[in-house]
Amino acid sequence: MTWLFYLVPLAAVLALTFAAIFYRQMKKEDEGTPTMRQIAQYVREGAMAYLKQQYKVVIIVFAVLAVFFAILAYGFHIQNPWVPFAFLTGGFFSGLAGFIGMKTATYASGRTANAARRSLNAGLKVAFRSGAVMGLTVVGLGLLDISIWYIILNACVEEVSLAQKLVVITTTMLTFGMGASTQALFARVGGGIYTKAADVGADIVGKVESDLPEDDPRNPATIADNVGDNVGDVAGMGADLYESYCGSILSTMALGASAFYSVSTDMQIKSILAPMLIAAVGVLLSVISIFTVRTKEGAGMSQLLKSMSFGTNLAAILSGVATFGILALVFGTATNDWWQLSLSVVSGLLAGVVIGKATEYYTSHSYKPTQKLAESSQTGPATVIISGVGLGMLSTAIPVLAIAFAIILSFLFAIGFDVHSMMEAATLSKGLYGVAIAAVGMLSTLGITLATDAYGPIADNAGGNAQMSELDPEVRERTDVLDALGNTTAATGKGFAIGSAALTALALLASYIEEIKIALSRSGEMLNGIAGKVEAASASILDVLNHFNVSLMNPAVLAGVFIGAMMAFLFCGLTMNAVGRAASKMVVEVRRQFREIKGILTGEGTPDYKRCVEISTKAAQQEMLFPSLVAIIVPVIVGLVLGVAGVLGLLIGGLGAGFVLAVFMSNSGGAWDNAKKYVEEGHFGGKNSDCHHATVVGDTVGDPFKDTSGPSLNILIKLMSMVSIVMAGLSVTSLI
Amino acid sequence: MTWLFYLVPLAAVLALTFAAIFYRQMKKEDEGTPTMRQIAQYVREGAMAYLKQQYKVVIIVFAVLAVFFAILAYGFHIQNPWVPFAFLTGGFFSGLAGFIGMKTATYASGRTANAARRSLNAGLKVAFRSGAVMGLTVVGLGLLDISIWYIILNACVEEVSLAQKLVVITTTMLTFGMGASTQALFARVGGGIYTKAADVGADIVGKVESDLPEDDPRNPATIADNVGDNVGDVAGMGADLYESYCGSILSTMALGASAFYSVSTDMQIKSILAPMLIAAVGVLLSVISIFTVRTKEGAGMSQLLKSMSFGTNLAAILSGVATFGILALVFGTATNDWWQLSLSVVSGLLAGVVIGKATEYYTSHSYKPTQKLAESSQTGPATVIISGVGLGMLSTAIPVLAIAFAIILSFLFAIGFDVHSMMEAATLSKGLYGVAIAAVGMLSTLGITLATDAYGPIADNAGGNAQMSELDPEVRERTDVLDALGNTTAATGKGFAIGSAALTALALLASYIEEIKIALSRSGEMLNGIAGKVEAASASILDVLNHFNVSLMNPAVLAGVFIGAMMAFLFCGLTMNAVGRAASKMVVEVRRQFREIKGILTGEGTPDYKRCVEISTKAAQQEMLFPSLVAIIVPVIVGLVLGVAGVLGLLIGGLGAGFVLAVFMSNSGGAWDNAKKYVEEGHFGGKNSDCHHATVVGDTVGDPFKDTSGPSLNILIKLMSMVSIVMAGLSVTSLI
Repeated sequence: MTWLFYLVPLAAVLALTFAAIFYRQMKKEDEGTPTMRQIAQYVREGAMAYLKQQYKVVIIVFAVLAVFFAILAYGFHIQNPWVPFAFLTGGFFSGLAGFIGMKTATYASGRTANAARRSLNAGLKVAFRSGAVMGLTVVGLGLLDISIWYIILNACVEEVSLAQKLVVITTTMLTFGMGASTQALFARVGGGIYTKAADVGADIVGKVESDLPEDDPRNPATIADNVGDNVGDVAGMGADLYESYCGSILSTMALGASAFYSVSTDMQIKSILAPMLIAAVGVLLSVISIFTVRTKEGAGMSQLLKSMSFGTNLAAILSGVATFGILALVFGTATNDWWQLSLSVVSGLLAGVVIGKATEYYTSHSYKPTQKLAESSQTGPATVIISGVGLGMLSTAIPVLAIAFAIILSFLFAIGFDVHSMMEAATLSKGLYGVAIAAVGMLSTLGITLATDAYGPIADNAGGNAQMSELDPEVRERTDVLDALGNTTAATGKGFAIGSAALTALALLASYIEEIKIALSRSGEMLNGIAGKVEAASASILDVLNHFNVSLMNPAVLAGVFIGAMMAFLFCGLTMNAVGRAASKMVVEVRRQFREIKGILTGEGTPDYKRCVEISTKAAQQEMLFPSLVAIIVPVIVGLVLGVAGVLGLLIGGLGAGFVLAVFMSNSGGAWDNAKKYVEEGHFGGKNSDCHHATVVGDTVGDPFKDTSGPSLNILIKLMSMVSIVMAGLSVTSLI
Repeated sequence: MTWLFYLVPLAAVLALTFAAIFYRQMKKEDEGTPTMRQIAQYVREGAMAYLKQQYKVVIIVFAVLAVFFAILAYGFHIQNPWVPFAFLTGGFFSGLAGFIGMKTATYASGRTANAARRSLNAGLKVAFRSGAVMGLTVVGLGLLDISIWYIILNACVEEVSLAQKLVVITTTMLTFGMGASTQALFARVGGGIYTKAADVGADIVGKVESDLPEDDPRNPATIADNVGDNVGDVAGMGADLYESYCGSILSTMALGASAFYSVSTDMQIKSILAPMLIAAVGVLLSVISIFTVRTKEGAGMSQLLKSMSFGTNLAAILSGVATFGILALVFGTATNDWWQLSLSVVSGLLAGVVIGKATEYYTSHSYKPTQKLAESSQTGPATVIISGVGLGMLSTAIPVLAIAFAIILSFLFAIGFDVHSMMEAATLSKGLYGVAIAAVGMLSTLGITLATDAYGPIADNAGGNAQMSELDPEVRERTDVLDALGNTTAATGKGFAIGSAALTALALLASYIEEIKIALSRSGEMLNGIAGKVEAASASILDVLNHFNVSLMNPAVLAGVFIGAMMAFLFCGLTMNAVGRAASKMVVEVRRQFREIKGILTGEGTPDYKRCVEISTKAAQQEMLFPSLVAIIVPVIVGLVLGVAGVLGLLIGGLGAGFVLAVFMSNSGGAWDNAKKYVEEGHFGGKNSDCHHATVVGDTVGDPFKDTSGPSLNILIKLMSMVSIVMAGLSVTSLI
């Protein structure tokens, strides 16, 4: 049966091959007029310069942490010896995924603009296929990294029994997730600060004070703004989803290995293979679905929308169906496991669809909430903000209920609705495995859903290029249509990303407890203490919870819950303030240029784009370090002071509050953005009316909500879990 | 020793007597010129009309709920038979406290304005003593209600043993807290919507669109705005703190009765008496401290501030010291309990002080954060909002850490730092009792801290009266000084209120578990199931948690945590939107009046104040019902579907996220308010500059943050716990 494993590296190669093919196709397209090439070149250079700068900082952080882990592992023997290496590869591949995605995007946007001169459909094809490069690169690199480590560790790890070996392999692999998370957090936070400093700065001086349209070449911050779309929305998102994708697979493997430890090594191997195979088949389905996204020449907007929705929906449905087949193949049809676990996956997929639809309902201006938000602009910017905050907060209800249902159902399906014994050790582990595999199902078609997401900023940048190159307004209209399309289809992708983050975080909680067992045995403290179990891996999750007095009424748990909830807010506060400060610097600079460089506003003088790019770059580098380090250090401190109970409280509090806060901030931001677009389409006075100005204030506030703080929270939640897992060795020797 | 109990009703009478004396003193003051009387009359009528309307709605809700409880109790026997009555008295007294406070305030503000014509000091005295009426009324009614029920139940409850009787008495009394919470929520939400609809409406059309100053008589919404201060900030706050005060005492009593159940009835009685006596002595200390707030004629602002701070600090310090004496008297000095529990109280008091100082630091414009916020107005309203949100989120760190420390320390002090056995049944209960009594300590001097809080809106309204009566500008300046003073001193009071809410909510969690035991025995399901214990009260908290499989890894707990966190956001979203909608109606009406009634802006025409009052009244009534009912119904549904484990997850998730969200919203709102005042004092261009307009947008957004949604969250958290406690009988028969 192990031959099935080789489908995983095969799928990785398949994904990377198609990514390369799509990349080449895109590069063959013409980049347009000399001005268009020039602007694309500016953006490309700015983006590359930024990433170089960013990686310099990140490399130092990684080096320090890797040395620290090495000391713990080889000096004090309280750390898994593979961790420093796993940590580094996770970070490397996560960064690489973002880098490739961004490189593609910066080549693609000018070409998309040029294709849009021919037709809407041509523009769609270039932009979407380029988005697919990133989608396939992320899943390809993810599966590659997983395959390589699985092969290496299988060959190198030596343990007394195969069962134990499997536990060690999977928990070791889990730690490469921390590298990916750390890289992702830096990418999201740094990129998020960069892009929003530029965007907010450009909007405030350009749109509000000088009535310039979006992406006007007279605005000195406009290149920085376009660079920002690439470093924040593309590179940041790539690293982010690489982390989500690998995290969900790795945590499921780890849970599987320990859940079936006492059952049989056969079941262990099956449960380790299952998530990898679901992901591998997902790659195939994604590639097939990507090819379905095409329309006849001369197709209208609604046909394009249908075509794209068809692609992602097809992939999701096929993935649900395929899961039954895969799990029947892996687990065999002698027991009920195959269809029970498949139903767990289906309940996850359904939750993803519901969250996506809810996101669309609350943030698209085709629906009432955003229209009402636009209407509130009639009473000024203050009511726009109040209504937008209200809308975002209300919009958390459906996603949370969907997740709650998904947790309960994926758990209950996995254990065959055996409610009476659900909290017995074996059943509990199996149920949690069900929750984890549901997350894998949601992300299995990431290849295409990420394509619809990454395609958005490409279309957005294409619009910028069209505007700055002063192409026919018709071209800009087409790129706007492409951009709007992307916003709608991306909602589904976001639904899966958010939902899977919550479920994966839960799986990581369980993995943390597993890791604690191993840390205990590694530190030499024998496990006899745990319910009389002699051997680490045979103790159950409940044994560990009891051993460390983890109860809801333990004051360390309660204090941890408060601190966890606070972490989510603190982190958002830090990143919001960072954007505020950086944007202020940008505003000051743009105002200075308008004042000092003559003829900018009449189009006779050339703004100093480079200076603005430098300001964003510098600000992002300075501001990203502190919030990211807080996220890494706090779980360690809580572990040292409040112990295992405190860490679990911290993670649960952070997960609950962080998830809801993330949904709130993303949806408020999205709704503000689209309310502005709704007004720009001619409602409530249209462009340059008082209502428009009020909605621009909303949009500006929404920028860091939806593109800096909100999306970073998903990573924060998982990074805190990952840090706790990697540092489990320290928290078993706490003060309390 | 039971004679000590009679100090409690005595303290109640003392508090009410001094409240009556201060009320009479205030009424003797002159109300000023005919215009001043006229305006005061308008405000009084509007406020009374609103409360009448509000009570009509609330009475219906209470009647329905009481009948429902009666059916459960007498029809199905799954409810404590005293609940319907306890519920009604809790609601009645809570409403009465708010009513008396508001009546006093509406008589006092005109008189404060008139006294301020003489001197600052005279104004302070009238306003502060009137605030003290509310402070003393709240504590007096609270202790009265507690005393009466304690006496009645002592006489009527019949149980097999005294130990069991004490458990039944205290858990029964706890349910009157639900009445108080329900009333408080309606008062806060209804009043909060009323006041902010009027305030936001008045600000948007008056200040922003027509450049009128605050409280200008030409603004049609100005009377509604002043009425709002009374119904929201006074009546709402009175009901709110009545609930907090009683809730902390009652939950401590209930925990005491069960914590020492297996020890001795003597210890039970002592632990029941202790919180009541700390509160009773707090009344005496409050009255003494109130008399220390006086300065010489001609005193300057800094002397006034010192005098007021001296009063509240004195009360806090005396209360800390007195606690040692009281607990030595109650528990005797033979064991260490007296000083250990006193240290628990001290750690609570310290947390309160720290939270108060942090609140002051983040929201007062004497410090950097608010000054920086004001500075961000130079780049427009969007950066004001971004920076304000960032500031509020950052400001959650210190309060949360203070609470986390207070939880851990008050727990550890109570058990004498016996960390190794901290999760054994007896130790755990004692530790939780320590957490609960810390909350009582924080609220024991509510008599004076609430006076400093209630004094604020009185001074604010006095300013409104001065402005509308076109008194000498010097008078308005004096009332502004009084108002600003109040904001600073109120920070300490808020620190205690917020901190005690968190600790009380934790105590209520424990009480919920106690109630579950009783519900099980009442429902006929024998308790043999619980760890083999035959008798309800002898099972420990941990027995119950184990019986219901309440573990951090139970999916019902995890789903509950998500739903709980979401509830906090949903509730805020509903109330924010309610304010947005109501304010829009107000804006439309004010614009209409400016358009249709000629000469308003030149002062020749008279605005139709009444119409605006009606709009606010109607909007508040319509909008308050849904969010309040959601808060009551959701815990019941979660109990029915997810059972005890789900409810505990819900309460913990709601507590963690709700507490942090409340601090964030209150502090953002406070900082926006003071940033505006800072600009008005002449910084960054002063009044009517662009910066001023930008900060007015911030202040307007902050209004519902700090006066509607934020403060309601504290009640929401506790109401959900109270509902769960009262409906415990239903959640033991859940689906999962």
